[in-house]
Amino acid sequence: MRTIGISTGGGDCPGLNAVIRAVVKAAIVNHGWRVLGIEDSFDGLIWPEKTRELKLDDVSGLLSRGGTILGTTNRGNPFKYKLTADGKTQDLDYSDQVIRNADALGLNGLIVAGGDGTMRICHELARKGLKLVGVPKTIDNDLAGTEITLGFDTALHTAMEAIDRIHSSAESHHRVMMVELMGREAGWIALEAGLSSGADVILIPEIPFKLEKIRDAVLAREEAGKRFTIVAVAEGISLPNELLAPELQASEVRPAALASSSSSSVAKNATVVLREAIEGCTGKETRVTVLGHTQRGGAPSPYDRVLSTRFGVAAVDLVARNEFGKMVCVQQGQISNVDIGVAAGQPRRVDPQCELVRVARSTGVCFGD
Amino acid sequence: MRTIGISTGGGDCPGLNAVIRAVVKAAIVNHGWRVLGIEDSFDGLIWPEKTRELKLDDVSGLLSRGGTILGTTNRGNPFKYKLTADGKTQDLDYSDQVIRNADALGLNGLIVAGGDGTMRICHELARKGLKLVGVPKTIDNDLAGTEITLGFDTALHTAMEAIDRIHSSAESHHRVMMVELMGREAGWIALEAGLSSGADVILIPEIPFKLEKIRDAVLAREEAGKRFTIVAVAEGISLPNELLAPELQASEVRPAALASSSSSSVAKNATVVLREAIEGCTGKETRVTVLGHTQRGGAPSPYDRVLSTRFGVAAVDLVARNEFGKMVCVQQGQISNVDIGVAAGQPRRVDPQCELVRVARSTGVCFGD
Amino acid sequence: MRTIGISTGGGDCPGLNAVIRAVVKAAIVNHGWRVLGIEDSFDGLIWPEKTRELKLDDVSGLLSRGGTILGTTNRGNPFKYKLTADGKTQDLDYSDQVIRNADALGLNGLIVAGGDGTMRICHELARKGLKLVGVPKTIDNDLAGTEITLGFDTALHTAMEAIDRIHSSAESHHRVMMVELMGREAGWIALEAGLSSGADVILIPEIPFKLEKIRDAVLAREEAGKRFTIVAVAEGISLPNELLAPELQASEVRPAALASSSSSSVAKNATVVLREAIEGCTGKETRVTVLGHTQRGGAPSPYDRVLSTRFGVAAVDLVARNEFGKMVCVQQGQISNVDIGVAAGQPRRVDPQCELVRVARSTGVCFGD
Amino acid sequence: MRTIGISTGGGDCPGLNAVIRAVVKAAIVNHGWRVLGIEDSFDGLIWPEKTRELKLDDVSGLLSRGGTILGTTNRGNPFKYKLTADGKTQDLDYSDQVIRNADALGLNGLIVAGGDGTMRICHELARKGLKLVGVPKTIDNDLAGTEITLGFDTALHTAMEAIDRIHSSAESHHRVMMVELMGREAGWIALEAGLSSGADVILIPEIPFKLEKIRDAVLAREEAGKRFTIVAVAEGISLPNELLAPELQASEVRPAALASSSSSSVAKNATVVLREAIEGCTGKETRVTVLGHTQRGGAPSPYDRVLSTRFGVAAVDLVARNEFGKMVCVQQGQISNVDIGVAAGQPRRVDPQCELVRVARSTGVCFGD
Repeated sequence: MRTIGISTGGGDCPGLNAVIRAVVKAAIVNHGWRVLGIEDSFDGLIWPEKTRELKLDDVSGLLSRGGTILGTTNRGNPFKYKLTADGKTQDLDYSDQVIRNADALGLNGLIVAGGDGTMRICHELARKGLKLVGVPKTIDNDLAGTEITLGFDTALHTAMEAIDRIHSSAESHHRVMMVELMGREAGWIALEAGLSSGADVILIPEIPFKLEKIRDAVLAREEAGKRFTIVAVAEGISLPNELLAPELQASEVRPAALASSSSSSVAKNATVVLREAIEGCTGKETRVTVLGHTQRGGAPSPYDRVLSTRFGVAAVDLVARNEFGKMVCVQQGQISNVDIGVAAGQPRRVDPQCELVRVARSTGVCFGD
Repeated sequence: MRTIGISTGGGDCPGLNAVIRAVVKAAIVNHGWRVLGIEDSFDGLIWPEKTRELKLDDVSGLLSRGGTILGTTNRGNPFKYKLTADGKTQDLDYSDQVIRNADALGLNGLIVAGGDGTMRICHELARKGLKLVGVPKTIDNDLAGTEITLGFDTALHTAMEAIDRIHSSAESHHRVMMVELMGREAGWIALEAGLSSGADVILIPEIPFKLEKIRDAVLAREEAGKRFTIVAVAEGISLPNELLAPELQASEVRPAALASSSSSSVAKNATVVLREAIEGCTGKETRVTVLGHTQRGGAPSPYDRVLSTRFGVAAVDLVARNEFGKMVCVQQGQISNVDIGVAAGQPRRVDPQCELVRVARSTGVCFGD
Repeated sequence: MRTIGISTGGGDCPGLNAVIRAVVKAAIVNHGWRVLGIEDSFDGLIWPEKTRELKLDDVSGLLSRGGTILGTTNRGNPFKYKLTADGKTQDLDYSDQVIRNADALGLNGLIVAGGDGTMRICHELARKGLKLVGVPKTIDNDLAGTEITLGFDTALHTAMEAIDRIHSSAESHHRVMMVELMGREAGWIALEAGLSSGADVILIPEIPFKLEKIRDAVLAREEAGKRFTIVAVAEGISLPNELLAPELQASEVRPAALASSSSSSVAKNATVVLREAIEGCTGKETRVTVLGHTQRGGAPSPYDRVLSTRFGVAAVDLVARNEFGKMVCVQQGQISNVDIGVAAGQPRRVDPQCELVRVARSTGVCFGD
Repeated sequence: MRTIGISTGGGDCPGLNAVIRAVVKAAIVNHGWRVLGIEDSFDGLIWPEKTRELKLDDVSGLLSRGGTILGTTNRGNPFKYKLTADGKTQDLDYSDQVIRNADALGLNGLIVAGGDGTMRICHELARKGLKLVGVPKTIDNDLAGTEITLGFDTALHTAMEAIDRIHSSAESHHRVMMVELMGREAGWIALEAGLSSGADVILIPEIPFKLEKIRDAVLAREEAGKRFTIVAVAEGISLPNELLAPELQASEVRPAALASSSSSSVAKNATVVLREAIEGCTGKETRVTVLGHTQRGGAPSPYDRVLSTRFGVAAVDLVARNEFGKMVCVQQGQISNVDIGVAAGQPRRVDPQCELVRVARSTGVCFGD
């Protein structure tokens, strides 16, 4: 009888609990294995005190529940773990401890659900000998090696419903309404949530935009008798040079990175700067809504519940076949797997020439370019 | 400047309005064409009085709206149109009239969104020379030639949310709760809605079942301390011989076909017969809920809104390239197209050996076999 | 330190878990009491083996969860408990045992959430000396003594969303769509769900209807260019004489009571009979959807979550003041309480002259009278 | 035959379209009157060019649609209308023009749905002789003279669902999650959305709070094994002195008013300041989500659909009885009406001693006091 571990890493995301459920069910029902729940991503292998066995009863009701019962963190890289003591912060390497503890727990395999950061750590730990299988999850959908990641479809629902709500407000008040969506590296949420909620302008990191194009789109709608405009904005957009403060124009720094909604900084972020610019050049009242963390939570959609179950079962199957160092994935619409090193690479970004962008343009969406 | 037509056929389905919107937008914005809305499927080409031009303003707000502004019907096959006069019902062939009227309206192309019945008619009309492009839609997801049809994802949402609701009832009352889902030929909705809502038993037309297996599943849950069971049932299941009335045992007739929820017949349908049988053999109070037409309506999900936009644009692209007699589709996860004859063939049914069924079994789902 | 009990009786209903949470929190946080969870309504006082203490941790997360963790039943009246042994069914009186066990458990008060059936039992047990406080819950909203019951608002949501979905289907197919809603004695759900979803015809037990009035309403819409009609039907309607089978015309028997959706009977229920009649006299395709158990489940609405918390706290306050034999309630929009005997009386039915019915008529709703 | 007008003023709000529908239906169906739709609040009486008749067809489908087809604005006070010309901004008095135009349009009555600002204007216009009836709407629920305003219940849904989503994120990441809700003057949304989503801390303008009480609540949860805390914050809270910048401590200025989410200002708003303070004193990662405009939009809840229909019909009834200068309202749970001057008074704020606040405290909610 094998013992396997399951943990969840990176930002939280709908469907993590469903993966845990699927792994536990497939391991116990199908194979008769024992499953250990590792708490708080790799922290639970550095300090394994809270590791607990997960039985069928422990995963009852998890399919529809957002979040992760195992906890998660997007801070604990065991190769350079930030610890602060006596006012000094140090980066410590706990990776050997992770390997030792996995061994001490008797793990014959560890399934880790995570995003790109987590997959990079998995890749390194796999090279040190840890028997790992990855499950791709991130609402941003930007993980390399898979056509879709767990959580994206649910995030689209939340974002689309929010934009639908804002739509009636925009229409009633004849405003420009901007909605800032998650996506630092890639504009998938802004693109698909924008497309599915009828956004008139979609701004994503992959397509540089000019203010005048947005102004033209707003005014063209005005002329056509539509007195409002919806602008879907990915948080990771780069402002055009004209909108950058002089001290930033020469640099590579992106304002969006300076002032996230979660940060205490009060520097203007890209969306705020752009709001002023749009209001200024169109003369139309312009408002911003930042969807923020609501995009990460909630009960998963049917697609994500089915996908997490398929991913969980596929991950257990890889462990059963002793195929480690892999990540389960979707390729050509089918469940498959790739070397975890692929997922640890550059994020998958929106190709500005891709079919989805062309479809959006064909239905009149302005990308500001 | 071309003139194209758009119509919607078969049972209604979320995303039809979004297809109409995408076709109109892509035709006008991208090509500068003129679009005619054909009413009530092919009826609108037999009697084209209500045909009207669709401009950009006419499709404003359609993305999120269920149903179809063009109307639909699943009764009007122009090759054998049932007309009743003087108490006599006749099958009339109006196909030539369809061709003539399409010509008279100046159509350089006709885009038809429909299911298998509609695609069969399209196939025959294409052979008579009508310049057709099909768009696959049916909540049942059983159209040949495409991996997914428009409307399926939204139907899953509706079904999953309903089963989630029934779940709390089942649990509180310690009952067996059966939920009858759409799917006469294929069990896709029952399979995926069941999987995504944690159904314990899933019964589909493609996998013959035995009553004793269901009983065993219910009793095994009881022993494990779970005092309720959720059974997802496709409306098209065949009852095992033991449950058929003597007069039906020798025949090919499926009881489900005798007494749909929409029929006035009071013959017991398969689900009702099965309910009695389960209650009888388990001793547990057993209830049925028939989701019925709620599965067909409502605002489309983000997936279906994006898919209908992609399908609509792809259909216009086919018309622009004069590629007629085709249906747009999803193959290997990508937008593509197939000969419309493929879609007119046998419905795409669930392969009992497919990955999804295996995944369900791996997480403990009982298929009654 | 007091010990109090909490139990849930009757059909399940959104908000029961939220009541349990509020009672446990208020008793522990506010008073430092001990709370016992009584299982399966009064069954748990007849056979108290599964009674367990409920601590704060046990009610964590219950606010948003449908159903009841304590289980419920609408069958176990302790004054005439149906038991079947050796093929013989007997009505046994377990009421003394209930009193004895409440005493043995050391209960200084028992809070019972339930509908009219449960309140009747509470009333009798209170007269036998049990220190009871009732909490009114039923999706039907027909409990005497309170302006609103727990669960009604959530049931309206479920029903309204379902009718909204059916609306697009009706419109696309130019059909008459009938939706059967819960309500055997009173038409509250049909009235308010119908009103909130724009139903054209609303049929409730309190207002006798004539078929010709429904026909006129359907045809008037047809003439006004609306090719569909939505009919909201309470399950408890009485058919007009003209539609009753001869053998029923002389009797008091209501067909709806003969064939509920949960029964195995295949006698035509009132909705099915009416469907045929409407199709017959209007010539329009007419379909029925029975919402059934979906109306009872699911996460409670904000109104029901707040109401259950208020009710739970108010019930604990009554126990603290030793005011037993009462039910908490809403009167003139405020939380109050009444003698439990009031709630045990006749159900609260829709007054055909009330403001809500007049409002519906003023906006063009047809009640068939 | 009378002619009446209907307009919508102030911030947009779910249920406005449903009021328009009810007014039009009741006026036409019940009385045979003519209804004029006045655009953009009082702007449409200053410049009545776009006034149009509303017939039954124009209000079809409006019951479920958010926003207002008549447009709205919260800027155009006809008594001091801000106009900017040649770089100079002037306050102009257009009130006589409003009276004249109402007369010229032949209005025998004007129904205005609005919040406190709109009711103040109505009150003054009524004194100048305009025959007005008000309908109370604001998601903030803080209008004097009515127990509930249109839009509040729907806003609670949106807020509660968002907090439910954030809940799973908070739990997975062991964070303090703050959610900023609308409510500048009154904390109704924060109070009821907080109560209905199980917030641990609720901060409202009516109850001054101390940072140390929040810290204690967070740490007490930590000790009880709950590693996260949800804080619902009304946007209108006043920071305690200790958290104000020195230059603000002596003044009356509230930081929240300085930097709304819609403003371009980058001054720290109260929520941002508080976030830093909570993170600082608890040592726990603390994040903010600002729900913003999503609270104003979307399809109305069943409660709001029924309420807007009742309000609309009641307003038409007042016009029919020539009772002007009144606002329809809810009092003691019943539809009633009050002098519009009442509604024009001080906003209705949360009484810190009221039953709802006591209920929240009884279930362990911390108000920071």
